[in-house]
Amino acid sequence: MAERSDPIIKFGILGCNSVARLCRAISSAPSATLHAIAGHSLDEATSCALGNGFTAKLYGSYEELLGDREVEAVYVPLPTSLHARWAAEAARRGKHVLVEKPPALDAEALGEIIAACEGSGVQYMDATMWMHHPRTAAMKGFLSDEEAFGQLKEMHATFTFNASPNFLENDVRVKPDLDALGALGDAGWYCIRSILWATDYKLPKTVTALPGIVFNEAGVIMSCGASLHFEDDLVSTFRCSFLSHLTMDIIANGSKGSLHVYDYALPFQETQASYYTNSRAWFLGGLAGWGPAPVEHTVTTDLPQVVLMVEEFCRLVRGIKRDGLKPEAKWPAISMKTQLVLDKVKLSIERGYVPVEVLDG
Amino acid sequence: MAERSDPIIKFGILGCNSVARLCRAISSAPSATLHAIAGHSLDEATSCALGNGFTAKLYGSYEELLGDREVEAVYVPLPTSLHARWAAEAARRGKHVLVEKPPALDAEALGEIIAACEGSGVQYMDATMWMHHPRTAAMKGFLSDEEAFGQLKEMHATFTFNASPNFLENDVRVKPDLDALGALGDAGWYCIRSILWATDYKLPKTVTALPGIVFNEAGVIMSCGASLHFEDDLVSTFRCSFLSHLTMDIIANGSKGSLHVYDYALPFQETQASYYTNSRAWFLGGLAGWGPAPVEHTVTTDLPQVVLMVEEFCRLVRGIKRDGLKPEAKWPAISMKTQLVLDKVKLSIERGYVPVEVLDG
Repeated sequence: MAERSDPIIKFGILGCNSVARLCRAISSAPSATLHAIAGHSLDEATSCALGNGFTAKLYGSYEELLGDREVEAVYVPLPTSLHARWAAEAARRGKHVLVEKPPALDAEALGEIIAACEGSGVQYMDATMWMHHPRTAAMKGFLSDEEAFGQLKEMHATFTFNASPNFLENDVRVKPDLDALGALGDAGWYCIRSILWATDYKLPKTVTALPGIVFNEAGVIMSCGASLHFEDDLVSTFRCSFLSHLTMDIIANGSKGSLHVYDYALPFQETQASYYTNSRAWFLGGLAGWGPAPVEHTVTTDLPQVVLMVEEFCRLVRGIKRDGLKPEAKWPAISMKTQLVLDKVKLSIERGYVPVEVLDG
Repeated sequence: MAERSDPIIKFGILGCNSVARLCRAISSAPSATLHAIAGHSLDEATSCALGNGFTAKLYGSYEELLGDREVEAVYVPLPTSLHARWAAEAARRGKHVLVEKPPALDAEALGEIIAACEGSGVQYMDATMWMHHPRTAAMKGFLSDEEAFGQLKEMHATFTFNASPNFLENDVRVKPDLDALGALGDAGWYCIRSILWATDYKLPKTVTALPGIVFNEAGVIMSCGASLHFEDDLVSTFRCSFLSHLTMDIIANGSKGSLHVYDYALPFQETQASYYTNSRAWFLGGLAGWGPAPVEHTVTTDLPQVVLMVEEFCRLVRGIKRDGLKPEAKWPAISMKTQLVLDKVKLSIERGYVPVEVLDG
């Protein structure tokens, strides 16, 4: 968390689509300030600022914003197809990069962004907010408990929501030239990340897309699922969709215990979040029953997870700018692993739902 | 439920393995009585009766028990490899047949049992107890609610338990000559049944086994999973295992609502059971949150589900014997569909985890 004397990081926003939550988070985060917004035109930037009540410098091109020497960090909510160009360009101009997920259309494009960040010594992070909620660390503590949870054996993750007709017609996430990864890139990103998170970011051996994928008329994925097979016979499945009721479930099952959570990507409430654990349950004697039943654990937080993400990003930026530290390598590494698995889901679909090797495929 | 004047159905038990729960249920069910137990030897039958405190006629062969004219119905807990022979023989002798799951090693063998039951006009039912819990009907009511749940879009089911070293060495369910279907036949049976239950017993178009299956040294499945792809782009996955913590989860997700249950196959408690529903949840404005959160529903029952199953079986037997009704066709039909899907999981494994057509494969 920022101290009173800490410098405030000045953010520029590259793009005006779905920026409200992040811009509000930057405005309210103790370590950040919303310095500038760039649209593809000045009209777009003006309309975005007025519509959301933001006070910031307004630019009519991304190029102009990147030329603003006061901008220290950029948040990139542009359509995914534009990330590689503009996030990499921002890095080359020395701006720290917080990029909306999915960060790129494939691992090759993400590699360009990360290489540009490394070349300039700036921090890279994707905007996967739930990584920064204190509940996430608490759940990880349970998964790491050899006595209470044991070895991870299987996991299922979902992120689904029933998008409106307007979304399904007009959102960037249904357009092949904008967010061509559709539901897989948007909702599926969270699922894949959650599985990698649970496995300590080990990569699976194989990725197998599951039959029953729905594409829109333009060929963009509206719902899909996959199975990830790891060493030690760990199997994880996930399901992501724009076409069904809102869920964000994780079931993670170990040799000795289970974790359940129903709102992993975004807690139901802003200041507290729950998860459920169970250990060493077994059948009772007699005619029926087993136990114990799962136990609820609640974690409280003063700031919502989106603000905590901005704070963590600013902490790293401060470390680089003021203290001469190196960028935190964890964030580009896990972003790349998530993107790599996502690529393999696509490849498995293209090959007819066959298992695809992750390192050789 | 039995009336005071209803005849009591006399059960014979074919086999002595893991019979305690069902024999107790038969003893305590108002409509049933435990009349006879047959082991492969008289010693086995005697030891089973003494060990569990059962009072019944004891037979040293299955043949002898089937020759007992007082026996009206049999419960068949024999190893699966013996079901086709003895359940079919019981039916041919005019006994009603309650068979432990999995009822057979494959659909062909199950077809022999069902054909024998049809030939004799006796009731067939597999011992899938949770079908008979009133919670199951309540959950089905929610899944059928067009406004609250909508169309079923995806589902995940688990049945896993961490078997003891003794089980993994000696139980009939790890032996290729006894219960050759291993975890798929035992725990997987519940998962497949739950998916078919949720789909109103529609068969999937394709079944795809998921990579990461564990076999024991004798080649019997210890853990596995599969994906079932139905018409209308419904996709269901399941996971069954002898090697991980005890879970019995269903997540069923519709276009408008979600169902969660954590003990579908056997409720935590004998006299009440819960499930959780959620409808029309959506993102809140501001920085965080969505809702509503799931709501708990609790269903109470006077009798445990295993006794309710025995009662339902006896009700059908009474209807046939006393009122001249035909056997209830639903039970053999859904048993056969469950077995058919199970066969296809095996076939997909044998073919290298490729999708297998259910009707043509």
